[in-house]
Amino acid sequence: MKKGNTIFFENKPAILSYAAVCGTKESEGVIGSFADVVLKDDMFGESTFEKAECKMLSTAISLAVKKSGLDEGDIDVLFSGDLLNQIISASFAARNYDFPFLGVYSACSTMSESILLGSTLVDGGYVNTAVCATGSHFASAERQYRYPLELGCTRPPQAQWTVTGAGGLVLGRSQKGVKVTCGTMGRVRDFGVTDVNNMGAAMAPAAADTIIRHFRDTQTEPADFDLILTGDLGALGSRILKDLTWEKGFDISANHVDCGEIIYKVVESEFQGGSGAGCSATVLNSYILEKMNAGLYKRVLFAATGALLSTVSSGQGESIPCISHAVRLEI
Amino acid sequence: MKKGNTIFFENKPAILSYAAVCGTKESEGVIGSFADVVLKDDMFGESTFEKAECKMLSTAISLAVKKSGLDEGDIDVLFSGDLLNQIISASFAARNYDFPFLGVYSACSTMSESILLGSTLVDGGYVNTAVCATGSHFASAERQYRYPLELGCTRPPQAQWTVTGAGGLVLGRSQKGVKVTCGTMGRVRDFGVTDVNNMGAAMAPAAADTIIRHFRDTQTEPADFDLILTGDLGALGSRILKDLTWEKGFDISANHVDCGEIIYKVVESEFQGGSGAGCSATVLNSYILEKMNAGLYKRVLFAATGALLSTVSSGQGESIPCISHAVRLEI
Repeated sequence: MKKGNTIFFENKPAILSYAAVCGTKESEGVIGSFADVVLKDDMFGESTFEKAECKMLSTAISLAVKKSGLDEGDIDVLFSGDLLNQIISASFAARNYDFPFLGVYSACSTMSESILLGSTLVDGGYVNTAVCATGSHFASAERQYRYPLELGCTRPPQAQWTVTGAGGLVLGRSQKGVKVTCGTMGRVRDFGVTDVNNMGAAMAPAAADTIIRHFRDTQTEPADFDLILTGDLGALGSRILKDLTWEKGFDISANHVDCGEIIYKVVESEFQGGSGAGCSATVLNSYILEKMNAGLYKRVLFAATGALLSTVSSGQGESIPCISHAVRLEI
Repeated sequence: MKKGNTIFFENKPAILSYAAVCGTKESEGVIGSFADVVLKDDMFGESTFEKAECKMLSTAISLAVKKSGLDEGDIDVLFSGDLLNQIISASFAARNYDFPFLGVYSACSTMSESILLGSTLVDGGYVNTAVCATGSHFASAERQYRYPLELGCTRPPQAQWTVTGAGGLVLGRSQKGVKVTCGTMGRVRDFGVTDVNNMGAAMAPAAADTIIRHFRDTQTEPADFDLILTGDLGALGSRILKDLTWEKGFDISANHVDCGEIIYKVVESEFQGGSGAGCSATVLNSYILEKMNAGLYKRVLFAATGALLSTVSSGQGESIPCISHAVRLEI
């Protein structure tokens, strides 16, 4: 069933299991004691950053499947994508498995897009199980989107720090566990921001658009949620989001939390906080789902945000179109 | 309903309309008289190849919507992706519309992946209408994946020519028109091919895997189809596909056609034929759907194929993982 841009899942697909892998810097923060695997070295025993990123992703996928108690042969489909050109982390991770792979891309909103699509297929009975996963790596993202680390470039104060980590979950049918009850599909929003170091400002309008449409489509208000969780707006982007939603009559300040804002103990060069597809993937698939299963949060709106730029589009003077897909998690 | 890796659409989503835009070279071939828009100049009035690619894609989307008789406000979601880093053609095209956008990526298999996902959402009643579209541009693909055109590099004989063009279709519910009756989700296959100029050889095993699983899941055989249509295997890749399926007991030689093999009048430097996401998108959304609506083909298995490499993965010595998603079209 659909209302506005929101899809309702009448059969309430369940999150059977979840897993997260995080890097060294990330392990010092809030997710350190919740992640399943904490890297001792961000190369993860591989020869390149990209291979390390891929290995983190497939580790998260395999662990999530293992924790669900299912065999890999029981998995019907994998939804995954990542930030690297041609989503090679996801594609190469998918090469390790015999189940089908549907590649998705919405930058750092990939976690919520894949849960939205996976839940639809499970809810409709088209598949019994779906794995949804994504990740990112600080070093591969820096050299692809910005500068090689070896250059030692200075970072501006509005910058964020791409999270080294990956997270995945298994969707299926179960009476137990956290349920995905509905999801709001994102629209591309572009408020004309051209500063590629200021992703928070670029993405906030997309998050506001999706969150407000979710409230309207489902006739809810901010107080109905224990948590309104965005992906990687960072400190500055989160302030803009709160302003934008407040202007439209929704005050989310009491229960809004941004994964990027909480992931690091901000002390050094992370500035506005974490970013990257792995940011919301690791926080959701460790800390948040752990707290939900413990009954601390009962209803969470998870709205990850993605900046749909490339180095080519920025080089050609384009502004940054952004998107946010949201799913509602309840227990 | 699902059997093996195949999803069945009991409500039979219909292709309400379709549209194709093709470049100058492409207009000389079989699709020239079927495409809705034929470029006079492959820059399409834009300042860069990438912007031209994006404009072709949004032209195909807008035209398909217009031909369906619907307003843009009636469209519930757009599934799209393309070959450019971070699928910027699709993302920037989606910026022109107010309906939601779900980004997908499976390289040149994007057309069939988007139809597969779009059909699932329409079949399940999650959306009423979905637009599925993709495209590519020879010049933007060459400079991203290989060399800038200005270098004037020689092309090896196993090479293919990336199609300049875009195609899109609108899915919905209707008694009339071509129906999507089922779809087989692809798995990543990698036979160890490392030659980035030999995509046909790399992709043929993925196509064979999906097509054979489709036969088995649906208990059909090659003779049940008027056409087994692959995306862009080219001449060499098509020969390999026929061999691989024949070895498994399925002789598809009588009714296999490859979009890449038929799109050009091969006379010059296209060698093995066309490739790119736009290849199968333009051929399907002009020539093939026109013939199906005229009753010439009644049952077509459309299995586009994608090579999931990037310049980084190839540069790091990786082989080329490939995928093929298939949908069955019937009238």
